[in-house]
Amino acid sequence: MKLSFKNDYSEGCHPSILHALATSNLEQHDGYGLDAFSENASKLILKQMGNYTADIHFVAGGTQANLLVISSILKPFESVISVETGHIAEHEAGAIEATGHKINTVAGENGKLTVPAIETVLSQHQIVPHQVKPKLVYISNSTELGTIYTHAELKALSDYCRAHDLYLYMDGARLGQALVAKENDLSLNDISVFTDAFYIGGTKNGALLGEAIVITNKELQNGFDFVMKQRGALLSKGRLLGIQFETLFQENLYFQLATHANHQAMKIKQALKEKGILFWVETTTNQLFPILTQSQIETLECLFQFYIWQKLNENESVIRLITSWATPEEHTHALIDAIHQL
Amino acid sequence: MKLSFKNDYSEGCHPSILHALATSNLEQHDGYGLDAFSENASKLILKQMGNYTADIHFVAGGTQANLLVISSILKPFESVISVETGHIAEHEAGAIEATGHKINTVAGENGKLTVPAIETVLSQHQIVPHQVKPKLVYISNSTELGTIYTHAELKALSDYCRAHDLYLYMDGARLGQALVAKENDLSLNDISVFTDAFYIGGTKNGALLGEAIVITNKELQNGFDFVMKQRGALLSKGRLLGIQFETLFQENLYFQLATHANHQAMKIKQALKEKGILFWVETTTNQLFPILTQSQIETLECLFQFYIWQKLNENESVIRLITSWATPEEHTHALIDAIHQL
Amino acid sequence: MKLSFKNDYSEGCHPSILHALATSNLEQHDGYGLDAFSENASKLILKQMGNYTADIHFVAGGTQANLLVISSILKPFESVISVETGHIAEHEAGAIEATGHKINTVAGENGKLTVPAIETVLSQHQIVPHQVKPKLVYISNSTELGTIYTHAELKALSDYCRAHDLYLYMDGARLGQALVAKENDLSLNDISVFTDAFYIGGTKNGALLGEAIVITNKELQNGFDFVMKQRGALLSKGRLLGIQFETLFQENLYFQLATHANHQAMKIKQALKEKGILFWVETTTNQLFPILTQSQIETLECLFQFYIWQKLNENESVIRLITSWATPEEHTHALIDAIHQL
Amino acid sequence: MKLSFKNDYSEGCHPSILHALATSNLEQHDGYGLDAFSENASKLILKQMGNYTADIHFVAGGTQANLLVISSILKPFESVISVETGHIAEHEAGAIEATGHKINTVAGENGKLTVPAIETVLSQHQIVPHQVKPKLVYISNSTELGTIYTHAELKALSDYCRAHDLYLYMDGARLGQALVAKENDLSLNDISVFTDAFYIGGTKNGALLGEAIVITNKELQNGFDFVMKQRGALLSKGRLLGIQFETLFQENLYFQLATHANHQAMKIKQALKEKGILFWVETTTNQLFPILTQSQIETLECLFQFYIWQKLNENESVIRLITSWATPEEHTHALIDAIHQL
Repeated sequence: MKLSFKNDYSEGCHPSILHALATSNLEQHDGYGLDAFSENASKLILKQMGNYTADIHFVAGGTQANLLVISSILKPFESVISVETGHIAEHEAGAIEATGHKINTVAGENGKLTVPAIETVLSQHQIVPHQVKPKLVYISNSTELGTIYTHAELKALSDYCRAHDLYLYMDGARLGQALVAKENDLSLNDISVFTDAFYIGGTKNGALLGEAIVITNKELQNGFDFVMKQRGALLSKGRLLGIQFETLFQENLYFQLATHANHQAMKIKQALKEKGILFWVETTTNQLFPILTQSQIETLECLFQFYIWQKLNENESVIRLITSWATPEEHTHALIDAIHQL
Repeated sequence: MKLSFKNDYSEGCHPSILHALATSNLEQHDGYGLDAFSENASKLILKQMGNYTADIHFVAGGTQANLLVISSILKPFESVISVETGHIAEHEAGAIEATGHKINTVAGENGKLTVPAIETVLSQHQIVPHQVKPKLVYISNSTELGTIYTHAELKALSDYCRAHDLYLYMDGARLGQALVAKENDLSLNDISVFTDAFYIGGTKNGALLGEAIVITNKELQNGFDFVMKQRGALLSKGRLLGIQFETLFQENLYFQLATHANHQAMKIKQALKEKGILFWVETTTNQLFPILTQSQIETLECLFQFYIWQKLNENESVIRLITSWATPEEHTHALIDAIHQL
Repeated sequence: MKLSFKNDYSEGCHPSILHALATSNLEQHDGYGLDAFSENASKLILKQMGNYTADIHFVAGGTQANLLVISSILKPFESVISVETGHIAEHEAGAIEATGHKINTVAGENGKLTVPAIETVLSQHQIVPHQVKPKLVYISNSTELGTIYTHAELKALSDYCRAHDLYLYMDGARLGQALVAKENDLSLNDISVFTDAFYIGGTKNGALLGEAIVITNKELQNGFDFVMKQRGALLSKGRLLGIQFETLFQENLYFQLATHANHQAMKIKQALKEKGILFWVETTTNQLFPILTQSQIETLECLFQFYIWQKLNENESVIRLITSWATPEEHTHALIDAIHQL
Repeated sequence: MKLSFKNDYSEGCHPSILHALATSNLEQHDGYGLDAFSENASKLILKQMGNYTADIHFVAGGTQANLLVISSILKPFESVISVETGHIAEHEAGAIEATGHKINTVAGENGKLTVPAIETVLSQHQIVPHQVKPKLVYISNSTELGTIYTHAELKALSDYCRAHDLYLYMDGARLGQALVAKENDLSLNDISVFTDAFYIGGTKNGALLGEAIVITNKELQNGFDFVMKQRGALLSKGRLLGIQFETLFQENLYFQLATHANHQAMKIKQALKEKGILFWVETTTNQLFPILTQSQIETLECLFQFYIWQKLNENESVIRLITSWATPEEHTHALIDAIHQL
């Protein structure tokens, strides 16, 4: 079997989660997120965040988190702004539109949304009432391209949004990896202050499944449980999500796992750089986008799985290499060895 | 802590599922339901069903299963017929309407839908195009009241539906408990033949979470994976669902667990009968609806948790007692002892 | 050709509307409701209503008005309460559900909604978040059965709604006929005070098409033009609606036409009563629901068109006779003659 | 008052329509499009089209026509392809997304969609089921930029769509103007053969309001009346639309009016060309997009109303001049005079 650097959801979960599930397995608990684990997990996250007025809801996956948050915030005629590479724009099978809302897409810079891009959208949506009303800004951190927002960038987006009556929402499918990236200068508290809602990804960082939606803007908190139930997102055994986030957040495990993922990626990046290989985009999280020749790709494909992200020309393509909390050191070294021999 | 007879989702999962999760945990598998466990689980279910042309999809919960199936079958102007007590009608926060479809509700008989009730709906929806067009019949087995459909009843519904260009869909949140009930004369194969789609409930019968949607009507199979992705129901780690259904169906565990649940309920029922207590509805599955006096209820509430289902008069109410795969014999005996002392 | 007492939309429009259209036909005006006619029509309605802070929007039809108002008011998980005979519940092809919202139906009293019926709905929707949240009360005046709300009844509904955080919306497809009914004690001002929104029906009272939506609750006014555009309800030649309502409201024509309709109905009612014929429901507006024998029905059907509303028994049915602004005296007399000869 | 070249819906309707409305005004007719006028109008259109198996439905406006057709054709996970300047993409307030569907936008060539652009969309939507499934191609003729499709271009689109299991739909808000443009080589019959559905615009070519939706693909015809009712598009006095289309199509009036509109535009175009003014896009229908200097614009604005379409640079902008069936020769000459004096 080829080693896979294709996804960060190829394995199960961190063993301590399995342990926690086993330990509590036959205890009786209330359903629908009212269990003690979920409550405790919420408290741990609030404490980590240093922001105690947020509402926290655990759901099964990222597309679900995005459609729940976005559809609960927007009025029928309001739209959400995203970069063209945004997960909601391209890889959620029209989930947002299925809730009735248009996505206004704009070009990103290294996968990131900028204030001027938002300004352009607003300036092009002035024909009332013939156009949708942009109301929400969607970003992801780390982005689909593995890049991260700096404190200054996020603050600028937040300031602009508040000045222009827009909400700001962050998709944190890979938030752990963003926050422990070496050049990161954002804290979880910063994110809770700068955004109106965000989610902390569990599925791609050690959980079997699960994302923690954090609604920090009090105006947006009311009724979210109804939205969850109505969209089929309220698990009867909510304990399953609570136990996992409790495990991830009670001993800093969440950040340790993300650090491991990034560390493996950075070692591979170093090997690629030493080989003189260029990158399509510069990243410090668990996603790498090196530019390889066709023959290099074919060589690596004998031993490893990965995505060919984009063909650049006759002879060169961008590939994506992705590591995770579960990537064993041996796999990393096997890939590095193969890179050395390219 | 009071023992709970309130829900059949108060505990985690059968230990053999935890074992299977642990064994496979660090293996790398494809995501989104394309893993080997999900494929094998599908095969096991098809084999158990004796019907190999159905499509099987695993999802996280019952409301999600219902909204996915119903919204994927109906055109925008088509409606679904359900008894008033149907789960979709009353306890899913408007999930079906949120996908754009009306539910035509009719009175049930002991929680079951009858052919005459469907006939009434059709006869009252003849004003084209001013009324919705009823197109799908929704039933659950066992029903919300713990009753089950006989072979003759299900065949009658199926025959009527096919003669009147209606689809038939069965919500099987508690299908295991229905199929092992002592007076049951339906097989999984019968259900696959009589319905166009149904789901096999895992969450209430040993799984951490998970329902297996079975689409038997080939016309309805196409595109369901898109619908799942669009509604946020496609788990990236689909292995989590695959492993559970593989475990439940590889050694008959699914039916053993349901048998245990029913057995505990029947012992409690026997104790109630011996006490001369009457029942609101006669059941042979894991739900009991005895009629108790206020003082009997207060006595039981000192030691046990359960729902007061409906107040009948000043002094009497229906309560619901529910057992599950996880109910220990000792809990059952504790309840029986308490009943004896009423 | 048989004379028709089947609908109140069988003819075109009052001739003065045709005249106004012709007079202004080649003038250039702004589109989308920003024309001078629409502005003036709004002012005339506000003046008639004696309430100058309402927002007025003109749309093409009643189903459209209902779906626009209801979908603009409700959050995704909120529902609307209606009597079972409500137009939205039975005769709009699922238009409200198509916008994502459940209708909670209750039995009416002579077509009217009562406070106890609303109370029942609220008491049965306490399982948060598993049930929809009733938020809006829908009534029509006159009702589908031709009955009207008294001042005391509407005030009671309004008081209850405000005390329970519910909105109140009145479908006024036949509001003119209600307001000029002989026992009516409600004014347009009362309605603007007691409801949060309502509409004044034009199509059934002299217009070619058109309903004037009046949003009195300032909280609900914002963004309604976007909702109209998004639902395809914003006519580019909005002047067409403006001119009609300007004509109907500048000289009391609206109420004169409704008075004519009711007057014709009352003459027919008198003839039926003299004949000893009973009524299914007592009305003083332009709809009559006499109970006729099969042979009486067959006799009348030789000369007239009307709906058979409901079969009561082997030999008797309720029919509906409806008059309008356009019913000529001769038609009324022809029907009265036929009744006399029954 | 300034003369307006801003819209082609600034006036009422052709006088012969007012005449026809007056003549038939007090006749009693069935409602909801079952009147004799609507039936006759359908026959006249079918005859004009030379295609007798199409279904025809009359609705009030273009956004309504678009959302009805598109939402009735697509399954929930299917999308529609449009050029970025498409009316559905930019000027319908998210009407298509509000019915649950994504619009895949691509760059147009002079406002027109090309086969390579569709190919690009398909090639970028291969990640099943993570992306929407493009299923319908939306074009308008004439386009938002006043350009028209040639026979060869429409045939190429049609052939491609049929070869790739896509439907083709044409928005004909200004179809009359396209079909009588001097370089046009398409017939109404061609359009009925090449597309699966299209609509014939009335509002912008002589009607008070109204568009005739033509569904030529028999697979797409079923249930459309329900969709109309459910979306609030079924007028009770459907006669209003029937009478207008009967008038427009019984004596070739529809094409005469469009010819007048184009003729006025072509005279203005000639004047602009003589002045050496360049055009942003070359058109032969009733829309012109000349490039003027700021001072030229200011001069014209003293006497005329028009839209400034796009600012090109510091000193130059594209304006839109639009004529219609109602533009009097004197207005055209007044504008030409002003152009001469620029």
